[in-house]
Amino acid sequence: MSVRTISLKISDAEHIERCEKLTHKIQQAGLSGVVLFDGDYIKYYTGFAFIPTERPMALVLNNKGQRGMFVPRLEREHAQANALVDAVADYPEYPSKEHPTVALNRLLHELGVTQNYGADSDGYPWIFGYRGPSLSEMTGSAPHPVRAWVEDQMAIKSAAEINLLRESCVWANLAHVLLQRYTRPGLTETDVSDRARLEATRAMADAIGPIWRGQSSYYGGAMAGYRGQIGRNAAIPHALANNITFQVGDVLVTGASAPVWGYVSELERTMVIGPASDDQKVMFDHMVALQDTALEAIKPGVPCSAVDEAVRAYYDKHDLWPYWKHHVGHCIGLRYHEGPFLDIGDHTVIQPGMVFTVEPGLYKAGLGGFRHSDTVVVTDDGVESLTYYPRDLESLTILA
Amino acid sequence: MSVRTISLKISDAEHIERCEKLTHKIQQAGLSGVVLFDGDYIKYYTGFAFIPTERPMALVLNNKGQRGMFVPRLEREHAQANALVDAVADYPEYPSKEHPTVALNRLLHELGVTQNYGADSDGYPWIFGYRGPSLSEMTGSAPHPVRAWVEDQMAIKSAAEINLLRESCVWANLAHVLLQRYTRPGLTETDVSDRARLEATRAMADAIGPIWRGQSSYYGGAMAGYRGQIGRNAAIPHALANNITFQVGDVLVTGASAPVWGYVSELERTMVIGPASDDQKVMFDHMVALQDTALEAIKPGVPCSAVDEAVRAYYDKHDLWPYWKHHVGHCIGLRYHEGPFLDIGDHTVIQPGMVFTVEPGLYKAGLGGFRHSDTVVVTDDGVESLTYYPRDLESLTILA
Repeated sequence: MSVRTISLKISDAEHIERCEKLTHKIQQAGLSGVVLFDGDYIKYYTGFAFIPTERPMALVLNNKGQRGMFVPRLEREHAQANALVDAVADYPEYPSKEHPTVALNRLLHELGVTQNYGADSDGYPWIFGYRGPSLSEMTGSAPHPVRAWVEDQMAIKSAAEINLLRESCVWANLAHVLLQRYTRPGLTETDVSDRARLEATRAMADAIGPIWRGQSSYYGGAMAGYRGQIGRNAAIPHALANNITFQVGDVLVTGASAPVWGYVSELERTMVIGPASDDQKVMFDHMVALQDTALEAIKPGVPCSAVDEAVRAYYDKHDLWPYWKHHVGHCIGLRYHEGPFLDIGDHTVIQPGMVFTVEPGLYKAGLGGFRHSDTVVVTDDGVESLTYYPRDLESLTILA
Repeated sequence: MSVRTISLKISDAEHIERCEKLTHKIQQAGLSGVVLFDGDYIKYYTGFAFIPTERPMALVLNNKGQRGMFVPRLEREHAQANALVDAVADYPEYPSKEHPTVALNRLLHELGVTQNYGADSDGYPWIFGYRGPSLSEMTGSAPHPVRAWVEDQMAIKSAAEINLLRESCVWANLAHVLLQRYTRPGLTETDVSDRARLEATRAMADAIGPIWRGQSSYYGGAMAGYRGQIGRNAAIPHALANNITFQVGDVLVTGASAPVWGYVSELERTMVIGPASDDQKVMFDHMVALQDTALEAIKPGVPCSAVDEAVRAYYDKHDLWPYWKHHVGHCIGLRYHEGPFLDIGDHTVIQPGMVFTVEPGLYKAGLGGFRHSDTVVVTDDGVESLTYYPRDLESLTILA
């Protein structure tokens, strides 16, 4: 295979190293092992990407480092081919005559994980109609909660993970270029975002080649879109898409990403179908200054809260509190939102290898929402932006 | 607004009726109220569609029928405009200086839901890096589990819900027609599925008009694709897409759907880039016979397990067990998988208004996967298929 393949995939060695770190935590805590049900956690430790459903799946890791994957019959070959584990244990079906947790209990006994154990949740969550007993009910003892261990481990990205996030930014950038190119009054957001998505995904698949795997439950391919944040609705972040028709004067808040072997980045831009009004210019400039303030504040050794505090000082100074709606940003990786958060309440110390979105926003009813989001990696002395899309108003004005 | 609007949306009256049914359960059980964190449940009771993140959200319903929606500042206006509740309580941000659960506790006290209460889970799940206390830790008493109440209620669809599912089938049908039309050797699945998705979504938005809302976290628009189930991989259901290039001789298992006001249907077909080999024909014919067997067995008053038993008798009779991987089907509605399940272990009695997928499958390594899935609604004396895509091999053969 090509050098490119080697540089892009997370290696078996790295997956094993991740498991060894967790095994070490298990041993330090004197636990017999852990049970993980979360699909993103299982992907992180085993490389196995799957779609969680009502059929329970779990990774069991014991204090000797042995790994067992628990899957329905439906996923047996898929898990055997893709999960870096010692053994795959399967059950026929959910609900079936024998509840799947009976087979899970057998696996727990085989691996010696029956008492004094950890788990990310007390049993498989009741999603998509699944019903079943908790681990407490199954084993007679409550699991030690271990989500924080996993979250802390996932928060520091390796060189290989940063490579994947960098690659994600390339294709998010392309999707966003196309989105901006095709956006014009009279077209609908569905038209424009689907065209951008299709062309960017095709280009990504052709450029990376047949080795490309998205492996994300969050994005199927490269994408860029509007999430309903257009004109009137632009002051409501996270609105679901409403298929609005673009009009002159709209303030647009975009979102773009691309999944590469499960990793996703975030690129958001405020665009105006212009020219921008004076009021829009004022808000846009403040928003860019807020983002600059945040970018300068992110440094290793500093708590996450300090970044939000620096940004909040800017809101104070310029009387912008009526337009505040959320903190500065969040980590990103296998999930499009992860902790820690750039928030006054998060005192996690920033470390090299953390990858954050930086996205302070201003929202004024009737005028619009103003937010850029850049994905940045923490270096030894500050940040490197993995996102390289223009941030200035002139570049982001769509002339009708 | 037009008659079409009225016929498509779930009315406020219906949302209120849903809440009243749950209130009745709360009263019967002598509880003070319930807390629901699940986004699909909240959509079901309030009409409010949102994207769950690390910022906790909840619906609190007390035994007097009062409804409070708990949201981050970011979602305040969005919830006020869309959630059919008496009051929206918000908190500034997660994690913030004061943990959001402090504000949730205030809302619980205002509504009198502090002891002897129910919940769908013991606290907001730790998704996307969220960390916080359980309801047990917050209130000093464990919640009564109420997911089963909600699931049982959601399992019986109203006339309005069936209308939405019927509408979903129309656009899934279009997406699938386009998928089949564009599939040919030498093209990739990404090419073909994205083109089908784009054109079908555009047609749906244009045909239904600007009133259309997808409101689904599962599908952004009408879609049809392959999920990697092509050629060699066709024997592995639920594989993630791998962007394979179509070849003569491939057995293809498709999937199509479309979200309409949150409701989604399921259409799956086995196609062959043909002509089909004799071995493929034998498996295809058995698969259709298995589906016919299931369709005939679904009747009100019969347990779900009886349908799987009828299908299993066919596997027995024709020695097909080496090719079995999963049960017959599942319910569908706001989620693409829901209970009850057409499975030997599910003894729920089938009732009019239940909407099932019917999709027994055969999987033979080296030959391919064979599965159709049709969405059907249970009537007073059997089923009506909402799916109307051709099921025969001739119609599903793509000639190179």
